[in-house]
Amino acid sequence: MDGVLVDIYPVFFKLHEEETGERLTLSDIEGKLEAEAFINQRRWVNTPGFFRNLPVMKDSRKVLGRLNDKFEIIVGSLATEFPECMTDKQMWIQENFPFISWKQIVFCGDKNLIKADIMIDDHFKNLDGFEGITLLFTQPHNTLVKDTRHVRVNDWPEIEKLLLKQ
Amino acid sequence: MDGVLVDIYPVFFKLHEEETGERLTLSDIEGKLEAEAFINQRRWVNTPGFFRNLPVMKDSRKVLGRLNDKFEIIVGSLATEFPECMTDKQMWIQENFPFISWKQIVFCGDKNLIKADIMIDDHFKNLDGFEGITLLFTQPHNTLVKDTRHVRVNDWPEIEKLLLKQ
Repeated sequence: MDGVLVDIYPVFFKLHEEETGERLTLSDIEGKLEAEAFINQRRWVNTPGFFRNLPVMKDSRKVLGRLNDKFEIIVGSLATEFPECMTDKQMWIQENFPFISWKQIVFCGDKNLIKADIMIDDHFKNLDGFEGITLLFTQPHNTLVKDTRHVRVNDWPEIEKLLLKQ
Repeated sequence: MDGVLVDIYPVFFKLHEEETGERLTLSDIEGKLEAEAFINQRRWVNTPGFFRNLPVMKDSRKVLGRLNDKFEIIVGSLATEFPECMTDKQMWIQENFPFISWKQIVFCGDKNLIKADIMIDDHFKNLDGFEGITLLFTQPHNTLVKDTRHVRVNDWPEIEKLLLKQ
């Protein structure tokens, strides 16, 4: 979800500036995991309500809708680490991706427990152990890694091109 | 969880009597799914707080703890159908099965999305499509089915005997 369906970085930048007065730039945080880049990040994501109203990643609704017509889509989220937030996360999916039913949602603590053929994710910790095809969704924390065994995608139209227009 | 780790039927019997004045017996509800047997069941399980304080199935803590030392245990629950209840369910697991970490918990809408070798469940809808070894945990709704392709287990000591004492 975060960093793939949820456009989470603009929210982190804004909250960080509000709470610390410091305006971070992309170059300040590139290559750092979210919790390293934003000192209060773990508190934010543990706050009930945080996940309820977050911006949708550009083009994700349109492209995921098209993918959902052709593939068996599962929306998976590492959510059991933040047990207060699962209801918010599911409500957010239902509101913003109404074509995804509750049967297609998995909240877990380890994405490698999910049976699937293709994984789209922004984190190496999720992609590296996955046996199927892996698409690395570009986010500031992963941009500095140039060579990976994953296919890098920079936005949802690139995913559409790869998976639907070949 | 329900009907395997959670001893849910005594709760259903009690709530049903409190709300309707009718004292059901086992023979009234045998062979019926929970929502058929107890007319208010869907309301109960959709009520925030319901899953927070439920009785633990006899011997499950002890046996699951022993299994957890030998197997990679995942606690999976069909929970996304009731999005208000996931936090309660996870708190209940953490309280009653403290050896199960958040990394071992999966909340989903379809248990066949979980990668595993053995499934212990009380519902045919979960077991029938599973490719690995399937243990059918006896609960009132499944007792009338005599021949199944699953191994029936009547309690947790039987599971221990099957999986740990061979």
